[in-house]
Amino acid sequence: MIVILKKNAEPQQVELFTNWLHNMGLETHMSVGENHTIVGLVGDTSRVDIESILALDIVEMVRRIQEPYKNANRKFHEEDTVITLCSGAKIGGGHFLVMAGPCSVETEEQIISVAQSVKAAGAQALRGGAFKPRTSPYAFQGLHEEGIRLLLEAKKVTGLPIVTEIMDAQHLPLFEDIDVIQVGARNMQNFELLKQLGKLHKPVLLKRGLCNTLQELLMSAEYIMAGGNSQVILCERGIRTFETATRNTMDLSVIPVLHQLSHLPVVVDPSHATGRYELVPPMALGAAACGADGLMIEVHNDPEHALCDGPQSLRPEKFADMMEKVRAIRPYADRSFTTSQDAGSSL
Amino acid sequence: MIVILKKNAEPQQVELFTNWLHNMGLETHMSVGENHTIVGLVGDTSRVDIESILALDIVEMVRRIQEPYKNANRKFHEEDTVITLCSGAKIGGGHFLVMAGPCSVETEEQIISVAQSVKAAGAQALRGGAFKPRTSPYAFQGLHEEGIRLLLEAKKVTGLPIVTEIMDAQHLPLFEDIDVIQVGARNMQNFELLKQLGKLHKPVLLKRGLCNTLQELLMSAEYIMAGGNSQVILCERGIRTFETATRNTMDLSVIPVLHQLSHLPVVVDPSHATGRYELVPPMALGAAACGADGLMIEVHNDPEHALCDGPQSLRPEKFADMMEKVRAIRPYADRSFTTSQDAGSSL
Amino acid sequence: MIVILKKNAEPQQVELFTNWLHNMGLETHMSVGENHTIVGLVGDTSRVDIESILALDIVEMVRRIQEPYKNANRKFHEEDTVITLCSGAKIGGGHFLVMAGPCSVETEEQIISVAQSVKAAGAQALRGGAFKPRTSPYAFQGLHEEGIRLLLEAKKVTGLPIVTEIMDAQHLPLFEDIDVIQVGARNMQNFELLKQLGKLHKPVLLKRGLCNTLQELLMSAEYIMAGGNSQVILCERGIRTFETATRNTMDLSVIPVLHQLSHLPVVVDPSHATGRYELVPPMALGAAACGADGLMIEVHNDPEHALCDGPQSLRPEKFADMMEKVRAIRPYADRSFTTSQDAGSSL
Amino acid sequence: MIVILKKNAEPQQVELFTNWLHNMGLETHMSVGENHTIVGLVGDTSRVDIESILALDIVEMVRRIQEPYKNANRKFHEEDTVITLCSGAKIGGGHFLVMAGPCSVETEEQIISVAQSVKAAGAQALRGGAFKPRTSPYAFQGLHEEGIRLLLEAKKVTGLPIVTEIMDAQHLPLFEDIDVIQVGARNMQNFELLKQLGKLHKPVLLKRGLCNTLQELLMSAEYIMAGGNSQVILCERGIRTFETATRNTMDLSVIPVLHQLSHLPVVVDPSHATGRYELVPPMALGAAACGADGLMIEVHNDPEHALCDGPQSLRPEKFADMMEKVRAIRPYADRSFTTSQDAGSSL
Repeated sequence: MIVILKKNAEPQQVELFTNWLHNMGLETHMSVGENHTIVGLVGDTSRVDIESILALDIVEMVRRIQEPYKNANRKFHEEDTVITLCSGAKIGGGHFLVMAGPCSVETEEQIISVAQSVKAAGAQALRGGAFKPRTSPYAFQGLHEEGIRLLLEAKKVTGLPIVTEIMDAQHLPLFEDIDVIQVGARNMQNFELLKQLGKLHKPVLLKRGLCNTLQELLMSAEYIMAGGNSQVILCERGIRTFETATRNTMDLSVIPVLHQLSHLPVVVDPSHATGRYELVPPMALGAAACGADGLMIEVHNDPEHALCDGPQSLRPEKFADMMEKVRAIRPYADRSFTTSQDAGSSL
Repeated sequence: MIVILKKNAEPQQVELFTNWLHNMGLETHMSVGENHTIVGLVGDTSRVDIESILALDIVEMVRRIQEPYKNANRKFHEEDTVITLCSGAKIGGGHFLVMAGPCSVETEEQIISVAQSVKAAGAQALRGGAFKPRTSPYAFQGLHEEGIRLLLEAKKVTGLPIVTEIMDAQHLPLFEDIDVIQVGARNMQNFELLKQLGKLHKPVLLKRGLCNTLQELLMSAEYIMAGGNSQVILCERGIRTFETATRNTMDLSVIPVLHQLSHLPVVVDPSHATGRYELVPPMALGAAACGADGLMIEVHNDPEHALCDGPQSLRPEKFADMMEKVRAIRPYADRSFTTSQDAGSSL
Repeated sequence: MIVILKKNAEPQQVELFTNWLHNMGLETHMSVGENHTIVGLVGDTSRVDIESILALDIVEMVRRIQEPYKNANRKFHEEDTVITLCSGAKIGGGHFLVMAGPCSVETEEQIISVAQSVKAAGAQALRGGAFKPRTSPYAFQGLHEEGIRLLLEAKKVTGLPIVTEIMDAQHLPLFEDIDVIQVGARNMQNFELLKQLGKLHKPVLLKRGLCNTLQELLMSAEYIMAGGNSQVILCERGIRTFETATRNTMDLSVIPVLHQLSHLPVVVDPSHATGRYELVPPMALGAAACGADGLMIEVHNDPEHALCDGPQSLRPEKFADMMEKVRAIRPYADRSFTTSQDAGSSL
Repeated sequence: MIVILKKNAEPQQVELFTNWLHNMGLETHMSVGENHTIVGLVGDTSRVDIESILALDIVEMVRRIQEPYKNANRKFHEEDTVITLCSGAKIGGGHFLVMAGPCSVETEEQIISVAQSVKAAGAQALRGGAFKPRTSPYAFQGLHEEGIRLLLEAKKVTGLPIVTEIMDAQHLPLFEDIDVIQVGARNMQNFELLKQLGKLHKPVLLKRGLCNTLQELLMSAEYIMAGGNSQVILCERGIRTFETATRNTMDLSVIPVLHQLSHLPVVVDPSHATGRYELVPPMALGAAACGADGLMIEVHNDPEHALCDGPQSLRPEKFADMMEKVRAIRPYADRSFTTSQDAGSSL
């Protein structure tokens, strides 16, 4: 961490400041220039609050050099994290995993049929919403407990591990048999929920918030990991910008950037990011080429008759077609920042 | 709501679609053009899911004409909502209320001293954080129960009603004696929490999320109001944009826009929005001129010795000076979209 | 175009309004609801100014159904546009073209050496800056005339067509022998320049502005095409958002979206978008997989000794390696919205 | 400027680097830590290109401490700049100036009538567009030469100085008698145009681009000032964000921030920023309270019959009413960062 002091900083105040830093166990290196004094802080600065320092009258600017996250940081954990699901399917370290399924669980017939289709096409986990965060209090909010039950039925029939979203820590008991707990974009900084998930021994799929930086995403992963749960999967699903041609703006460069910063697996969700089913295959291929560790795809078996499913759902045939192309592209994917080889993987 | 059908929409599918709409209690008006057919939907469309309609193959575009919120909508509730606190202080309908206090509650001495200062300067409510949402799991997270206790001590001494933030519905029992419960920007779409707050009979101060539109803010207010609690105060605290000169970008035009759309009181928080104490007075004056119903201001009595307080805190003298100017500007404030007269208010 | 009239619109004013529309050659279809009247406009609405209609007291909302661009619109020109350079290299309609070279032209030796390297690796056009738009008036602004001369030298030696940026219409005479004129992001809405380029018979590479929507990009293409020049290549180079991990945010979904909306070729520039050379190969592979028609890549032969070149330049070896992977991925690229087959292309 | 070197930077490369810096006339201060070496650069760093340094393999991070602009920088020019127009009206240093008039010049009658109205209400300059930047090539682009002529007619009749926009340096001869030349948001980084304006001895009103930072705005002012023209007026007109409730997002905190960074006068244009006439008065009052040095307001005398004028134009009566309130608020405006007293000013 570097602190730039103002030109006219009183020596007495500077001494108070450096003493305070030394008491926190940090070393300080001073470099006195004509217009500014630069203080270099050496030691563990992850607990130092930048705002507190900025509040001081003598300080002009503060910059971190070291990242404020540790458990999620590749610098302290060089090897890619590999997460293994109950079925033996793996993600990370060259293992590619596709999670597919409907936006919302509707009926037993629907969820089992979709589960079978996506499994046949190569998906290795079933996703489906039982608790749905909806902007409007008047919109359908999911089947809740019943939805969870139906997902577990589909697991029994197909053997596919289940990924589903949690919206409140109080619902945790219902998620006991769920394989991967998803934290939605709106809850990425619901810190009380993250702390509870840190106590589990179960993979957590953490979606990036619509206006959150990659550093904030990694800090939220850090909340879970600091609690003892190291099985975190990072998920990019687009950010909010001025462009309205797609629902959100999905920057695939976050894949190599996250791989550079962290050892955690990175998946992308092109269905929610774009909001339009026709754009899902191109973005899924793009993500595979950029080196993603997996995909999260919405698939519905009968969107014609299902009025409650979104315009971002692929039909099973299109999903199967997309999966073939993903398989063809995977061997040429960029792997610059991972320690992985193509592991043949789950596809 | 207007639905534009594609040029080649099959009549049979169009009939299925209109039947489905009629079953939802909506009337349809068709206007057939050369290239498109326009369907106008008449009736209560607040429960209609735009995404479901967009998912249909025959649909090209959907646009709402009516807002999807009702309880919060000025069209259905013309008069400004006025909220009265335990002390008799009011906000809304021409009553201006200033909530001031430190970012975090630290000690009994600190909170009581700040409370007395802000009261002397004209504030009518005390704000202070007991539960602090922090990006880093390693940062100070507030005094929790003890913080709440100290706030209530300060209330006893000064008579000022208390405003403080809740982060999880499970903490609600601790907030029984709190006067105004604050929902922070990160929890604006924590829908489970909003539902719980809807069951209370207590004012809720709802902060706009960093990447949320005004419509989403009003939909979150609607979650609380749909549960039966109509005492919602809307709070603007800046949005996230590309500009980094200030912490966030605070658009004061949201004040008249929200007054136009809703009858709920609107306050602004220039301390968090700008992140720099020197910018708080100009933005507070600007907000008053634009017609805000109140302000939320961070004040700390001794930032020199309090390293845990942020650079956005005003000292009591500066706060008092700002309050005088706010009082001078208030009579000339814009009132175009409210039903209020300057009520002399709480200042 | 749809116009929603206010509830209380006076019939006399409505009549004035519809007469005005009829005088512009438009038909109107009225659909009178309880709360609103919907007016559907049929005919050529591309000259209708939305703002003018919104200014009317009786109007609540206006929405376009038809896009305001015609020449660039795929609806009126179904086949992919294919552009052929002097060398015979093609772009569009399944032809893939890579333009590569240094950020700035520095010396004859440098530009010829880079040109030979990128040609050997499969690039079919040489890019290099002679006029450099720089944020600071004190920064190096390019070699100007001399830079153009050196580029043409490199063309003589290698046969590669030249792509270079213009910054002002007054410089046009210098660009007579240039093969593709580039309009930079900052000039995307320099309408006077676009009008001048519309008079040429020469390909124009039009970069999307940092805060411009895809519709605005297509409207700028329309400026050039309306003047008679139909050879426009669209270029995505990232937009400005709150994220600072990369220089800009590059949404590859614009590739399929632009292919859906327009018949013009679409290339991407990952060097400027990301600002970091390590991210160029993954994003280039992603772009190829998403169906881009080409790439624009910064390559420098000796960044070690060239202090004036940016951190986004690849060395020739890395570029060659990237090109191989791009070739491998191309056959599996998404082609959903184009009329193209993989044409073996220029690689 | 501070440069952070990588942990494993080779001493030989570090020496090459520091020698290069010394050759540029800079001193270097090294501070060697366990994980990083910090190099502090002392001297005139405004010509140092950050990108060039970042391109070096040994460099991890670079940060400016000193701003890259000098002429526009308050640190080197403490006193507020005051600009005097031909009429004697002043702006800056406590002088408040309102520029008002129609979006486009239409007819002699219109422009003279509006000029008389706005003068009567207290405006001291007339604005009106002769060259109009339009997104669509098919939209009305202004009266050009004829528009300039009509503006000068209005000046003859009323004595009001004229402010009007230039779109291309080639049109400069037409602007000889214009008092203030406006550079629109889309041309803020049209550097060739800025260079030409730097050669004039005439006030330039420079609008902030829709996606430009305040630093970039000041760098564009620097382009003009570096050429010798120090009469630059900065104009905020909103930036582009995800929010669509208003046309743009207008952050009034830029007023105090710009006053802190620069001595140049700052005006705001609420008409273009909000795009809705009803929002113009509240934002104008807010801007006055925040300490703006002036306003730019669209006024039209007969919007009912003028279909080509935008929805953001005020009628003269509303403008006059707004002006009265602005005058009432001005004495209480924030002046924290200026050297000015309320100069009674031009109102």
